Amino acid sequence: MSASTTPSTGAAAPRAVVLLSGGLDSATVLAMARASGRQCHALSVDYGQRHRCELEAAARVATRLGACEHRVITLDYGQLGGSALTDPAIAVPDTPGTGIPVTYVPARNTVMLALALGFAEVVEADEIHIGVNAVDYSGYPDCRPAFVAAFERLAALATRAGVEGHPVRIVAPLIDLSKAEIIRRGSALGVDYGATVSCYAPDAAARACGVCDACRLRRDGFAAGGIVDPTVYQARD
Amino acid sequence: MSASTTPSTGAAAPRAVVLLSGGLDSATVLAMARASGRQCHALSVDYGQRHRCELEAAARVATRLGACEHRVITLDYGQLGGSALTDPAIAVPDTPGTGIPVTYVPARNTVMLALALGFAEVVEADEIHIGVNAVDYSGYPDCRPAFVAAFERLAALATRAGVEGHPVRIVAPLIDLSKAEIIRRGSALGVDYGATVSCYAPDAAARACGVCDACRLRRDGFAAGGIVDPTVYQARD
Repeated sequence: MSASTTPSTGAAAPRAVVLLSGGLDSATVLAMARASGRQCHALSVDYGQRHRCELEAAARVATRLGACEHRVITLDYGQLGGSALTDPAIAVPDTPGTGIPVTYVPARNTVMLALALGFAEVVEADEIHIGVNAVDYSGYPDCRPAFVAAFERLAALATRAGVEGHPVRIVAPLIDLSKAEIIRRGSALGVDYGATVSCYAPDAAARACGVCDACRLRRDGFAAGGIVDPTVYQARD
Repeated sequence: MSASTTPSTGAAAPRAVVLLSGGLDSATVLAMARASGRQCHALSVDYGQRHRCELEAAARVATRLGACEHRVITLDYGQLGGSALTDPAIAVPDTPGTGIPVTYVPARNTVMLALALGFAEVVEADEIHIGVNAVDYSGYPDCRPAFVAAFERLAALATRAGVEGHPVRIVAPLIDLSKAEIIRRGSALGVDYGATVSCYAPDAAARACGVCDACRLRRDGFAAGGIVDPTVYQARD
């Protein structure tokens, strides 16, 4: 499940764990972390996403953006049910809704950050980078700045490093950015967004549906950012 | 991976998620939660423990103590390495040490509570019960009251229920108890500790080694509590 990518250079570089979903946001986060000189340990969680192409995208992105390693932890999160993203019995909506969407995965970012915290302890990283965004995902409770700050406080109490006076920082560089701003930053850093997958309902060839919440946000972001959208969309009637 | 045990009675009973490891502490927690009238959704995490007998013990305990269901989530935590409990390359010590023990699993309780939080959202439980203990496990940062309190603050910000004004409480009823006190409470509630497994290094017949940290704490606890120890130990020279 572990795949080395570019070998580490510069042993003294500070280390970060970067949560990598295969989507646009986390690819941008990895590019930003690499640009800041960090040695990046990419972590993806196979939590029963409906679509394997997301994890394949994460592996591509880790390689292209120079992560020193990419690990995939398997978690059969679908056992818990409750989300359209892991439960086939719940349909992914193709029109915008209000409130917390059915694509919300229960406690998803809490679980992701907890696993990243364990990984950070093992590789002795002093930062965890995560692509949460409070602008476009305001319906998700675990994408808000207060959540990220609370996790950082928890981490300081939860770990060996914290006890020894070296708490892990939680870095969420996209939290206040619009999708257009995220895309502009990543494009300036050379991110190939054609290698990423955002769609909640891609087809077998990994082509995006173009109508789910994630596709709408992504498409509008490229348009607003004035960047050519490399996404391959499914033909629709 | 899910196994129903005793069917629920009293639909109006408040619900709790109870983290169940198969050990003495969490069995006691389940017995206490049941005695308080809660409908208990037991959750075990198969995180690559060396010994399957722990999960078998968890299933036995869930059934005997009347959990309304018992789910096991698989997480290949051993991918991260770093602990004697998941990494076969690290030996389990058979003499007491100082500081944080090698049997510490990185961010273990953070991960367990995060998964329990997701489960609590799905089954609409308003409490998570966990058998952390600050007396006997003082070397583990994530067994301290401050950690539990920080997780509860995080949970209030992390979830749909929290956003809607119904945050989950984290209940750690053993946190200030000695092992002897835990055993006395559980015995009074009818817990059969012979069905539980604490040992870090049991043999193929699930017999306890008698010398690891967990065995020492358990054996001393029965002695100090004046309760007959039902544990089957391996014969040693």
